[in-house]
Amino acid sequence: MKLSRRGAVEPFHAMDVLAEATKRRASGRPVISMAVGQPVHPAPGAARQAARRALEIGRIGYTDALGLLSLRRSISDFYRERHGVSVDPGRIAITTGSSAGFNLAFLALFDAGDRVAIARPGYPAYRNILAALGIETVEIEVSAENGFTLTPEALEAAGRIDGVLLASPANPTGTVTGRANLAALSAYCRENGIAFISDEIYHGLTFVGEEATALEFGEDAVIINSFSKYYCMTGWRIGWMVLPETLVRPVERIAQSLYISAPELSQIAAEAALGAEAELNVYRDAYRANRDFLVKRLPELGFSVASPMDGAFYAYVDVSRFTNDSMAFARRMLAETDVAATPGIDFDPKDGHHTMRFSYAGSFEEMSEAVDRLARWLG
Amino acid sequence: MKLSRRGAVEPFHAMDVLAEATKRRASGRPVISMAVGQPVHPAPGAARQAARRALEIGRIGYTDALGLLSLRRSISDFYRERHGVSVDPGRIAITTGSSAGFNLAFLALFDAGDRVAIARPGYPAYRNILAALGIETVEIEVSAENGFTLTPEALEAAGRIDGVLLASPANPTGTVTGRANLAALSAYCRENGIAFISDEIYHGLTFVGEEATALEFGEDAVIINSFSKYYCMTGWRIGWMVLPETLVRPVERIAQSLYISAPELSQIAAEAALGAEAELNVYRDAYRANRDFLVKRLPELGFSVASPMDGAFYAYVDVSRFTNDSMAFARRMLAETDVAATPGIDFDPKDGHHTMRFSYAGSFEEMSEAVDRLARWLG
Repeated sequence: MKLSRRGAVEPFHAMDVLAEATKRRASGRPVISMAVGQPVHPAPGAARQAARRALEIGRIGYTDALGLLSLRRSISDFYRERHGVSVDPGRIAITTGSSAGFNLAFLALFDAGDRVAIARPGYPAYRNILAALGIETVEIEVSAENGFTLTPEALEAAGRIDGVLLASPANPTGTVTGRANLAALSAYCRENGIAFISDEIYHGLTFVGEEATALEFGEDAVIINSFSKYYCMTGWRIGWMVLPETLVRPVERIAQSLYISAPELSQIAAEAALGAEAELNVYRDAYRANRDFLVKRLPELGFSVASPMDGAFYAYVDVSRFTNDSMAFARRMLAETDVAATPGIDFDPKDGHHTMRFSYAGSFEEMSEAVDRLARWLG
Repeated sequence: MKLSRRGAVEPFHAMDVLAEATKRRASGRPVISMAVGQPVHPAPGAARQAARRALEIGRIGYTDALGLLSLRRSISDFYRERHGVSVDPGRIAITTGSSAGFNLAFLALFDAGDRVAIARPGYPAYRNILAALGIETVEIEVSAENGFTLTPEALEAAGRIDGVLLASPANPTGTVTGRANLAALSAYCRENGIAFISDEIYHGLTFVGEEATALEFGEDAVIINSFSKYYCMTGWRIGWMVLPETLVRPVERIAQSLYISAPELSQIAAEAALGAEAELNVYRDAYRANRDFLVKRLPELGFSVASPMDGAFYAYVDVSRFTNDSMAFARRMLAETDVAATPGIDFDPKDGHHTMRFSYAGSFEEMSEAVDRLARWLG
């Protein structure tokens, strides 16, 4: 059978590690998963309650392609209350997780051969979706020198660019890009006719620095957000976009055919989740405690922290003391300690062979037990 | 803002009609929706019960990209019991509705510029997804002359083709392609190195003729199926693919980045739905009664039935007595009778200006009331 060339994208190694961890757990092994970015906590009680009620009432059906109007209105309220920004609900599109948001943004904005800049290290699905769509990825190395984020200067040096995609807080580095830098990037893109996509899916999980939305700097950025992380709703596959007015109808048209609509039950639950901050902030504070623990303990294991860890829930560490093949290292670590983490090659095809990403969205007990196991294993 | 060329796909007009119907209903109008292909019935009791239980237990998380193993095994059992075909669960991929199945199949099989044959009239999302991915659609007219389905002869006449996508039962025609024809198509594709994608999402809803799966004729077809129609789970966004062995890993890799996984709650509910045939067959029999009613009544209104109506739950009718602009007709009908149906241009860009599709997956009372309103309106 002939396979397509574009289908030859890299695996998302974290998902391969997840599959391996699932298999080991099914065989009775005491696996601690720090591989995938998902909270150990369930969705907020109000969200689950809303879902249960909807299940009793009856049919879970297609919604409008852009989502339930009440959810779009609630998200508009969220922006006014949280960020002091006014957003017409008509500019909000509900998506099947941020995964759909990225795909829709790329399809609506870029043609094959266009060039989109992202940070390296960065979220691998960016690169893989762009590749599947024939869009060229321009990876810009971020490091201590440029504050682990993208800057107008770095974009200027990257040649022709049609789009820029920046996450703040960022995966895997945890970089929080401050207001001034975000404003400068936004202005640079506007002046140069470059589409600016702001990945804000880790909003709500900023431990150091200021959390700004690109919406503060104009209505021309494409915002991508999600209920997966702060709201603990990974498996519900529900997120949203805020779109420039001109992009609403193109995204709606594409979404009608590619997704029909996001899962209705998840839309109903998500609306309830928006009001559950008291419960969710307890979880956020638990991640903060995990973070403070790992910032101290990982270097003692010989894993030096290779990035800011100011937000999101990842520790991105240098493991060059132990290996120059992070994939093999991840496999051996899982096989010998039952601790799953993600090889750096997921995030950085060039320098990720000596880095690893640990997600700290688990319980403190898990973090502590994982560190104990690794200390014994490496000792 | 620069928009992409590929994003300029046609709208899925049925979804536009749905959005309009939603708006009218919200303003208190007694809308009867025959526009979108979704059952009026809720998911089976066992499915909703399984979802409720999962909500009580805790976190709804990412699953492996190919889905929960227990669901994949249950689907394998389904093929053995229903079709007498043995399918390794490893070849089954759980998808976020058949929408994801089509996108994954197209991405894994075809590059930009490849040519894929589909029936005209046919499901518009085929055409729109293919267009967004830069794949050329080769529309082959189906009519009474060729039994409203694709044949090796028609493919032979269509020039170079890299893939064929056939639905049986088909949307909007209701054509059920029999075993002999399906076997011939499958063999023709195999002999000519053409990828064969069999859309079986309306399986379980065959009223006339024999329901065969392309799996009966070899392991090289890509099967796409869904829990939306027979299983009444549209808004859950859950479906599956059966893949040739060589396609499993490419589809898994692409799905990891484009979808991460299908909604876990929907996967859990879907597994329970597989055992709910007794309940679901009652609904199927109700569609059959709707069908028999409409086959008789629609022509009396002046809407002559333009296709077999042997399966699925659509009446595709010729409205040329009343209009030569099906979109305007659909809008006026909705505005003046509160009955929503889909303009034929969704399914047939060439000849669909004088056809309409009515979904009969609603209640008999709705069908009856809709026909009464239309009779008054047209009379």
